[in-house]
Parts: sequence; C-alpha cells; structure tokens
Amino acid sequence: MSEALARFSINQMTVKQLSLPELAAACTDLGIPGIGLWREPVRSYGLEKTAKLMRDAGLTVTTLCRGGFLTETDPHARVRAIDDNRAAIDEAATLGTDTLVLVSGGLPAGSKDLHGARSRIADALADLAPYAASRGVRLAIEPLHPMFASDRCVVSTLAQALDLAERFPASQVGVCVDTYHVWWDDQAPAQIARAGRGGRLHAFQLADWVTPLPEGVLNGRGQLGEGSVDLRSWRALVEEAGYGGPIEVELFNEALWSRAGHEVLSETSRNYLQHAC
Amino acid sequence: MSEALARFSINQMTVKQLSLPELAAACTDLGIPGIGLWREPVRSYGLEKTAKLMRDAGLTVTTLCRGGFLTETDPHARVRAIDDNRAAIDEAATLGTDTLVLVSGGLPAGSKDLHGARSRIADALADLAPYAASRGVRLAIEPLHPMFASDRCVVSTLAQALDLAERFPASQVGVCVDTYHVWWDDQAPAQIARAGRGGRLHAFQLADWVTPLPEGVLNGRGQLGEGSVDLRSWRALVEEAGYGGPIEVELFNEALWSRAGHEVLSETSRNYLQHAC
Repeated sequence: MSEALARFSINQMTVKQLSLPELAAACTDLGIPGIGLWREPVRSYGLEKTAKLMRDAGLTVTTLCRGGFLTETDPHARVRAIDDNRAAIDEAATLGTDTLVLVSGGLPAGSKDLHGARSRIADALADLAPYAASRGVRLAIEPLHPMFASDRCVVSTLAQALDLAERFPASQVGVCVDTYHVWWDDQAPAQIARAGRGGRLHAFQLADWVTPLPEGVLNGRGQLGEGSVDLRSWRALVEEAGYGGPIEVELFNEALWSRAGHEVLSETSRNYLQHAC
Repeated sequence: MSEALARFSINQMTVKQLSLPELAAACTDLGIPGIGLWREPVRSYGLEKTAKLMRDAGLTVTTLCRGGFLTETDPHARVRAIDDNRAAIDEAATLGTDTLVLVSGGLPAGSKDLHGARSRIADALADLAPYAASRGVRLAIEPLHPMFASDRCVVSTLAQALDLAERFPASQVGVCVDTYHVWWDDQAPAQIARAGRGGRLHAFQLADWVTPLPEGVLNGRGQLGEGSVDLRSWRALVEEAGYGGPIEVELFNEALWSRAGHEVLSETSRNYLQHAC
C-alpha cells in the first residue's frame, strides 16, 4: 500500500461495474486499503463470502451503506424498516466495519410534514442505536443535499443530523459528512466543529459537484477535481475537528459506470491524491 | 376582480406561451389583478408599450424579474453587470413596479470560492441599492435552492440573503421568499420572522416541489398542490411576519408550457384558492 493512499477508501458504488472479487483484486493492485460496501451487492455475492474476501485481501471495510428509510407512518412499514435496519447492523458486524451509514428517508406518499418525518427518525433511532452498540456498530446519519428532501432524506443539513444524533451517546450515533451534500452550506464548517467536539464524525466521503444535473439528479456526482467543491478545504475542516479516519470516495455517475472499472478506480485514486491531499 | 384573488399575481414565466396582450386579456377575464414580469419578453414587446398595456388593463406589476448575476471576477464583466442591473432598475421604474428580484449569480468558471462570490454580491449591492432607491425601486434578493449554488445563485438560504440585505436600509434591499427554494429549510421560518421584523419581506412567490426533477433541474417546478410543499403554512408564516403584499405564482414547467395558456392560468388560480388560501 502506498503511504499517500493510507486513508483512501473506495465506495463500491463508484465502480459498481466491478464484481466484488474484481474490486478486491483491483484495490490490492492499486494499493487501496479500504472499501465502502453496499448491502445489495454484498447480499448477491454472499455475506460471509464477502467478509472472507475482504479479510483475505487485507482490505478494511470502512462503511456499510446503508440503513435508514425510517420515515414511514404505516405501523407495518415501520416494523419492517426497523427489522431491516437490525439486519443491516448485523451485516455490518459480520463484515467487520464499525460504521453503518443511514439515509434517513423522505416524505411518505402524500405527506408534506417534514418535521413529523424527522421525529419518526428519532423514534426509530431510539430502538436501533442500543442494538447497534450491542453489535459494535456505530450509526452515521448522512444529511443528503436538499434536492433529495422529499423523496430520499428529510435530513438536509449537518445541523439537523446532529440535532438527531445528539439525543444518543456519541459512541452509538454520529454523522457522515459527504462533500457532495454539504458543500453549498455556509453553516457546515461550524457544524463539523460541533460534530468533532462531540466525537460524532463517524464517516467522511468525497464527491465533486458538477452541472448540469441529470434527470432524477441521483447519478450526477462529479469525479474529484472536476467540479465546484474545494475538497482540500473540506478535508482540512474535518481534520481540524479531530477526524483521522478513512476518506471514502463515493461517486454515482453513469459516465464512470460505462468505463472499465479498473481504469476508473485508478483515475479516482490519482484524483484523490491531486485534489484532496 | 374576485375578492379571493385580491392578492394573487401570476408570474409571466408560468404561462410564457401567452403574449403580453394575451396575458393581460386572460388576467382581466379571470379576475387576476397582478402580474410579475420578466425583462426579456418585456423588451421584445417594448418597455413603454408593456407599461401602457398594464396600466390600460388595470393590472399591477408586482415584480420585475430579474437583476443580479453579480459574482463575476473579471472587471469588464463586473462593469457590464452593474450597467445591466441599472438598466433593470430603470425598467422596473418605467413598468411601475416597486420590486426588482435579484438572482445573485453562481460561481465564475473554474472558481470554488463561494465566500468570495457572496462578497462580490455585497460590493455590487453597495453600488446598486442607492441607485434603485433613487428610482423608487426596492431590490429583493432571492435565495435559490442549493441545487443552483454553482451555476445560478450562491445565495442558497434566507439567512444568507438577509446577511447581505441587512448591510443596506430595508427600504433599499430585502428578500424574495419563494417556497420552491426554501421549503426544505428548517431555519427558514425563523429567517422569515427576522425579515419581517426588519421590514425586508419584499416579495413572496409560490411553487410546489415535485420529483423526479428533470435534466438540468430548472424547469421542474410543480403546480400548486401537486407536490410536497405545505403552501398554506408558508403563507401563514410570511403573514405572521407582517407581509400583506402580492402572492405571486412562478412555475417553470415544460408540461404547463405545452398546454393552452389560458387553461393553465385558470388552473393555477383555482389551485391557489384551494391550496394557498
């Protein structure tokens, strides 16, 4: 492993064209020490099999994505969501990662009540946080860009994420800072400091902001260095706040997915060194 | 004019398929008392001719859209922007509206410096605000949704807009609250109260939030009542803060533009009565 990449982690979605064995081999080849995994491809390949693949390759699983979607009002849907999140916590423990990232959920169909949705997330966390702690897993609430507030995540800012997290011990619930989601927010630097003081900086992810956004806006994340985000400044902010953990790059981008995975991985690690180190 | 529509205003862009005379006639027909105008169609039809058309139809011009784009670094581009905004102020005065809406501008090409861009807006306002006052026009800084921060408007929240506006007398610079841009922000209610206390609520616009967003995200504003925004609550917030002015509906939406303008205007006024009154 190259020393310069010591904290680099590749989120699996960035190169989803690679199978898990291909990804593990490419990381070994390029000296990349960490991988952020997603539940669906892990389940397809097999949970125990993935855990063994990561161990055998000497790779650190930096996060598991994702739990969450905790905003439903229907009681049956809420029970299913809690059960599913307990399963995600178990999967994180089996994979050997200490961090489960939460995408909290959008508004239920027909609802206009953001405040109520945020309250239901808090209720669900009261159930999930102690269970996660019992499995050695921390929950990391990820604020998503406000353009996802209705359909994906009513937690739009670090301040909101911390308001939720601070109801629980820092060892149980913290936040995931993703530059793509917070770069526009002039309050985010102060909130990163708040999170650091509280020991709640549980994950840090990089992506750049490029326009025009594609239809549906989900898969328009920019390769590092190609957009408007001052990545080095954001890294400095989390480090000044005490963060010394993995730096995970998570890009959802149709153009990157259409290219050879090894090439994209190599480019991403180069861009990380150039723009975030 | 129907009493229920007394404060209703249609922003011209909502029914841009209508020519100005068609729009004036449709407003008269439907009992709509106010119109928000855009500079480009006004210029095409003729400035003085538009002013006369509005006066003759007994229509109030509630706002002129838009000035702004004040973030360039190149000195020549800055001079051009100031000149263009002075012209917009003159046009507003000629049209008889007291409010020019400002879309402040995004990041210059290659820049990642949001803070610097916001500073340059302040510098430009120091030049423009007294000139606007001398023409009887107020500037209304409109925060745009954070998804426009890089390419259209680095002012993403009401708090940021007020931080800029409060450098100047309230009679010169205030804010434009558009539900589409602020609905996700849990800090916006407190900022509306702040704006009200300072006499800086200069314009109020309605649009609903619907997903999926279209490519480029500009023309995906939802018809009132079809999305996630609790319009009645936002209206109550601005009114509790002392706002008693026009309520302008501004929808950029390809589907609405493809229909007959009179029908869209009629639907929009009905939906206003149903969802915002």
